[in-house]
Amino acid sequence: MPKTEHFQWYVEEFAPTEFHHHAIDELYYAGRTAFQSVAVLRTPTFGKMLVLDGDTQSSQHDEKIYHESLVHPALAAVRDRGEILILGGGEGATLREVLRYPGVRRCTMVDIDGEVVDLCKRYLPEWSDGAFEDPRARLIVGDALAFLKEDRGTYGAVISDLTEPLADSPSFPLFNGEVFRDIRARLAPGGVYVLQASTAGFHNMALHAKMARSLRAHFTHVASFFTHVPAFDNDWAFIACSDAVDVAALDGRAIDAYVDELRGENYFYDAQTHRRIFSLPLYLRRELAKPGDAFV
Amino acid sequence: MPKTEHFQWYVEEFAPTEFHHHAIDELYYAGRTAFQSVAVLRTPTFGKMLVLDGDTQSSQHDEKIYHESLVHPALAAVRDRGEILILGGGEGATLREVLRYPGVRRCTMVDIDGEVVDLCKRYLPEWSDGAFEDPRARLIVGDALAFLKEDRGTYGAVISDLTEPLADSPSFPLFNGEVFRDIRARLAPGGVYVLQASTAGFHNMALHAKMARSLRAHFTHVASFFTHVPAFDNDWAFIACSDAVDVAALDGRAIDAYVDELRGENYFYDAQTHRRIFSLPLYLRRELAKPGDAFV
Amino acid sequence: MPKTEHFQWYVEEFAPTEFHHHAIDELYYAGRTAFQSVAVLRTPTFGKMLVLDGDTQSSQHDEKIYHESLVHPALAAVRDRGEILILGGGEGATLREVLRYPGVRRCTMVDIDGEVVDLCKRYLPEWSDGAFEDPRARLIVGDALAFLKEDRGTYGAVISDLTEPLADSPSFPLFNGEVFRDIRARLAPGGVYVLQASTAGFHNMALHAKMARSLRAHFTHVASFFTHVPAFDNDWAFIACSDAVDVAALDGRAIDAYVDELRGENYFYDAQTHRRIFSLPLYLRRELAKPGDAFV
Amino acid sequence: MPKTEHFQWYVEEFAPTEFHHHAIDELYYAGRTAFQSVAVLRTPTFGKMLVLDGDTQSSQHDEKIYHESLVHPALAAVRDRGEILILGGGEGATLREVLRYPGVRRCTMVDIDGEVVDLCKRYLPEWSDGAFEDPRARLIVGDALAFLKEDRGTYGAVISDLTEPLADSPSFPLFNGEVFRDIRARLAPGGVYVLQASTAGFHNMALHAKMARSLRAHFTHVASFFTHVPAFDNDWAFIACSDAVDVAALDGRAIDAYVDELRGENYFYDAQTHRRIFSLPLYLRRELAKPGDAFV
Repeated sequence: MPKTEHFQWYVEEFAPTEFHHHAIDELYYAGRTAFQSVAVLRTPTFGKMLVLDGDTQSSQHDEKIYHESLVHPALAAVRDRGEILILGGGEGATLREVLRYPGVRRCTMVDIDGEVVDLCKRYLPEWSDGAFEDPRARLIVGDALAFLKEDRGTYGAVISDLTEPLADSPSFPLFNGEVFRDIRARLAPGGVYVLQASTAGFHNMALHAKMARSLRAHFTHVASFFTHVPAFDNDWAFIACSDAVDVAALDGRAIDAYVDELRGENYFYDAQTHRRIFSLPLYLRRELAKPGDAFV
Repeated sequence: MPKTEHFQWYVEEFAPTEFHHHAIDELYYAGRTAFQSVAVLRTPTFGKMLVLDGDTQSSQHDEKIYHESLVHPALAAVRDRGEILILGGGEGATLREVLRYPGVRRCTMVDIDGEVVDLCKRYLPEWSDGAFEDPRARLIVGDALAFLKEDRGTYGAVISDLTEPLADSPSFPLFNGEVFRDIRARLAPGGVYVLQASTAGFHNMALHAKMARSLRAHFTHVASFFTHVPAFDNDWAFIACSDAVDVAALDGRAIDAYVDELRGENYFYDAQTHRRIFSLPLYLRRELAKPGDAFV
Repeated sequence: MPKTEHFQWYVEEFAPTEFHHHAIDELYYAGRTAFQSVAVLRTPTFGKMLVLDGDTQSSQHDEKIYHESLVHPALAAVRDRGEILILGGGEGATLREVLRYPGVRRCTMVDIDGEVVDLCKRYLPEWSDGAFEDPRARLIVGDALAFLKEDRGTYGAVISDLTEPLADSPSFPLFNGEVFRDIRARLAPGGVYVLQASTAGFHNMALHAKMARSLRAHFTHVASFFTHVPAFDNDWAFIACSDAVDVAALDGRAIDAYVDELRGENYFYDAQTHRRIFSLPLYLRRELAKPGDAFV
Repeated sequence: MPKTEHFQWYVEEFAPTEFHHHAIDELYYAGRTAFQSVAVLRTPTFGKMLVLDGDTQSSQHDEKIYHESLVHPALAAVRDRGEILILGGGEGATLREVLRYPGVRRCTMVDIDGEVVDLCKRYLPEWSDGAFEDPRARLIVGDALAFLKEDRGTYGAVISDLTEPLADSPSFPLFNGEVFRDIRARLAPGGVYVLQASTAGFHNMALHAKMARSLRAHFTHVASFFTHVPAFDNDWAFIACSDAVDVAALDGRAIDAYVDELRGENYFYDAQTHRRIFSLPLYLRRELAKPGDAFV
């Protein structure tokens, strides 16, 4: 009776009645920053994983599904990709994807938790893949809220890679009308604001729908899109907002032309994938069409 | 310190290092038929679930995602929907979806495990929703392989809702060139053969790709499509095969016209959803383009 | 990669940070009576198990350790074993052990949950082993508290096989000075009151110590004893109280003479086992010697 | 719905159908030496724990139950406690207990895994509590088998704190007649050989019984004893062997006189505890009396 070799497990709680157990091959780091608990570990299925406050943030084997979805539809849609702003994005993979576009002159990334950024540089260098050393990268360790109040720059795209605006989350103050107006003021003409926007599974799409409802009061075009991210065990949603362009309706040839300009090869995203992730199933369209409350 | 109320759990093994734990609200049945182990239970997230040999087969809250995907792209594509054949499909939900089309004159369902069919009628009546009592339904409890050899009928669509052709599975003998030829011989002109076709996640798409490679030797058009099914914790794939029609390229208006003819409302599928599930991400297209072995 | 055959598990919560997982071979019953949730199941290690409100009550393979400990030290100690009273004891195994002594003329068992008694008769007949049909058995389905107020009988031993007097438990009202006086009034001269008395592990012996402190105000001799019960994953304690006899100091030859009179063979208990379970380790003696609060 | 803070768990496998899950408060170390995998962690219930090859070796909160049982019955029984030999014992707690007796002139400890010894010194200093720095301690990192062949010393007690002689274990070669003879040759007149000797629970006492049968061919007195060790979730057994003294029958006053000479206070062991752990329940005595195979 050979015993399993794995006696350390990472257990993610989805609900008090739903847990997923991942055997840990190696635990690189476990600790607590000023803002959150952090674990960096490796599992057989997903490779390295970053876990913040008990939630999987990204995994080595499928992070490109998430990060290409977050970055490229927005960048494909904007006219001027010279200046890009990222809110959050500690792992550096959002920055990496932005900098793959040669025409980006500067990408500013504002993350409140410098310790997480340092841990990711040390243990997850595959995520940033040198992006932090790119001379076009500007890393600001600080509060995105304060940055938005003080900054005078404008950006072709503002990419929000923050955690969810749950009532007890540090991201909660970043999700209200005042902040949306602050972000809108930072967009260059033709600019796009894109954000990760919670889950879109049949059983947990209410928060996403509320986020979409809230943003429709501030932007002309508000397009939900989503993809399954295996490491999240969830359909993960995003929202692309703009007064100038409907990202959902981008022309496929324009998308593929943009993708061709990127350094290196995409893993997930191109025009066909765009069509997939912006085509929503009936149940989600119905949910998004319902009236309801909003972040104000 | 209040204890959790749940002390019975359904634990699904995805790998010896990956387990998902679902608290059980109620266990309706657990036993073994001549062919497999069966459990019918209810969990807070997914409602009732059918579990065969330890694998989730379908859940009350999201089975329509699976069954609408399996049935409607194929039916929307075929010319003559009068006679339909289902291989497997014990829960009766595939039958239910087929019979929602008024023009179906008869739907034959061949399932080897009559005990599972009876258990589903008793404990999961929401799945079949009266379909077994529909006079157009013809249920044959028997071996699909023998049925295909003996049957002389032709069908607008043959829908395979069998378990996966793993080496030790009862479905293994149903996946080879001889059987593909037998199925093709049962298709009416313009007919479509559609099958559930394993997982399409980044880490487990090899079997699906092998199935697609195998079928390309037998059919002119072989279209993979997939959707995330939350209760499966996986991206679930299907393949639509035909000599007459490329199901992936169906016209959206034709799809919506077909959907409008169905009795009752769809939950998941229409033209936009069709576009979603047939648009494949880059990594899967690359996998499908690779050479490799096939079922012969 | 063969998967485990077991996908149903019984998970016992010892603390929010301690869980024991038992694979279920068969689930015979799961439901709820007027008083508590009940499950009857079978596991590879312990055989059949009775689970009330998520706590293991007894297992087929080691219930004799518990029931022989509860019954025989007390019965060995009393002068007149003609009339015995059991409070609780739904499985019928305490009754079984009492009736193994031929000199018992009548054993009265008062249990509030008749449904549990019926379930045990049906699914766990090995526990009672015919005891409920013994003409000397008198089963009263009712409230032990009311019985003690109304009953006029006296008993050589009163055996309390109730659940723990936790604040939210139905057993809580059964643990106070008034009840101790009621029980004492039911003891024949030379009688013994014995009760299961919570856990005695290094990390959870406080409730047991409080029970012992409480009883010292009412009885001349109050003897703690305990044994590890594997199915409980705990050192399980009992208390034997008497004004006439110090059960801890019973003569070994008298014990073995009593054991020899029992019908059938003991599994666990005799004079040497008595010496074991009444000899307490240093840390528990120190805990029992500390002052502290009591049930009044 | 607050989520649990604990997402790292230590899962101990007792059988493929029995797992115990402990939430990890902190993981101090996880790695692999030349001989075994090692983890040092802390849980809410047990404090720090040492885990070798997935098995709990000892826990901060109850290691004294194990180590006082291993050391003091033997030392209480021997005439000359000047020279003591420990085989294994990496944590240093066995050494600590031996050196608490002031009359010990030298204690030699032979452990094959110097890396484990170093990890214990660093992360578990509470276990050795300075013992490695005691001038009477002699640590030899090396193979106990070779040591026994080459050493010419004699010892009042030889204490074996090795892992179990399972077929695939590094301890297997240390459990046969030749080794027993080598150990016996190292005992001073009146000496005692004591060893940890596997589990004594009702469901897993076969290996212990085989060890006892094997030793009876080599020693006049072979006394089994055991105690529940909560962190092991098992009744843990030991065997004390001697040609001169029956350790089971030690006089209680002699034991307490010995205990009084120890530096500091015992937590678990004294004459009453000795009576407890050497008094065996019926089922274990019956198992020990059965004939069967032996290590030869």
